[in-house]
Amino acid sequence: MIGGWYKEWQQGRRFIIKVEPGEKIREKLIAFAKETGVKNAVVVSAVGSVLNVHYRGIKTGAKRPITPPRMHQHEAKGPFELLGLEGNLICNENGEVDSHLHIMLAKSSGEVIGGHLFEAEVFASCELLLTEMLVEGIERHASKSGGTQTIFIDEEV
Amino acid sequence: MIGGWYKEWQQGRRFIIKVEPGEKIREKLIAFAKETGVKNAVVVSAVGSVLNVHYRGIKTGAKRPITPPRMHQHEAKGPFELLGLEGNLICNENGEVDSHLHIMLAKSSGEVIGGHLFEAEVFASCELLLTEMLVEGIERHASKSGGTQTIFIDEEV
Amino acid sequence: MIGGWYKEWQQGRRFIIKVEPGEKIREKLIAFAKETGVKNAVVVSAVGSVLNVHYRGIKTGAKRPITPPRMHQHEAKGPFELLGLEGNLICNENGEVDSHLHIMLAKSSGEVIGGHLFEAEVFASCELLLTEMLVEGIERHASKSGGTQTIFIDEEV
Repeated sequence: MIGGWYKEWQQGRRFIIKVEPGEKIREKLIAFAKETGVKNAVVVSAVGSVLNVHYRGIKTGAKRPITPPRMHQHEAKGPFELLGLEGNLICNENGEVDSHLHIMLAKSSGEVIGGHLFEAEVFASCELLLTEMLVEGIERHASKSGGTQTIFIDEEV
Repeated sequence: MIGGWYKEWQQGRRFIIKVEPGEKIREKLIAFAKETGVKNAVVVSAVGSVLNVHYRGIKTGAKRPITPPRMHQHEAKGPFELLGLEGNLICNENGEVDSHLHIMLAKSSGEVIGGHLFEAEVFASCELLLTEMLVEGIERHASKSGGTQTIFIDEEV
Repeated sequence: MIGGWYKEWQQGRRFIIKVEPGEKIREKLIAFAKETGVKNAVVVSAVGSVLNVHYRGIKTGAKRPITPPRMHQHEAKGPFELLGLEGNLICNENGEVDSHLHIMLAKSSGEVIGGHLFEAEVFASCELLLTEMLVEGIERHASKSGGTQTIFIDEEV
């Protein structure tokens, strides 16, 4: 398994991205990747506010693989403070940029909610900092045992 | 709008900062920026514990722009585990370093609370990792439509 | 105290690490550090899902130093979406790599819980991005006043 569970990458370009009120974060990140030619990247930081957030959690006690009946989907109206957006852009087996993002949101009461992000709309502002990853031999595709899309790292020869 | 919604930046210096018990995190970050000459930076990581946290949320159902009656301010005594500090330092229109930080805190029960940070005092320790951003044509100032201070990116000519 | 509260570091190698279902995240990070010779590092991003999470919070109203009776330990079964893993690997006074990690988890309901991480097992996947820190004169050891293991930065001569 040497080389199959971790891999070194090089830093490429660094970007600051401003997503405007009414725009959708995931849609915008994919549009950004297409315009700039970024293939793989990591979200270093994200702050702002969002509304109409569609995300999911895993049902308590669920078994692997994660199938739709084992997930709980949420539609949250907000607006919310955007406390964090954690994740990456990695190409899938068709060479298309695919995002894996988890979101953290603060309610008016201060309580924090979040999960695996499907989509969120920007409320007042969204400031994203992103670093391009230069790397070969990594792609995201479906894991049969896990049930989700996840990273696969080629073994070194 | 080409060039106006994202911009490339270069990495400058990287720092590890230790904020001591009783010190205030935002105050200390601004003091740090003055002492080192850092103009723009991103918080890469922050762990530790805090108390006397002043932060805000956005009221559910609020409209833009975010005005004080549409926010909910919180004063939380703690102490809390500091789970994350997400955000950046970007100069404002007067060339002064201004911070935009969102905080995530764990209560004794394990519940997580957080929001837009005004100030927090360090309890037992605070370990911050920060990367300086070298970039021109970016500043933070008030957004009339959003109601908040946010980043503006000059359009490329 | 000049030089004692912050220090510049250089970036070393960057890694993507995939922790497999059933493996333990902290154990795996320490094994990774041994295999690659990484002495100090920062977690830039972590997404995935976990179960059997052992973590702690600080009791409300607790005084310094943080002693075991002033903490609240939690064992959470899950599985949970892993929303974030914030923290660093820094060598202790014996030159052994020691981790300081805080975790954020989403319950099925969307509520977020978290705290200072002891250990967590990967459920379906875990994608970690890590940057090696090249730095001298920093180590983690026990703080008498704080009660916890924290970073100490040598003063510049």
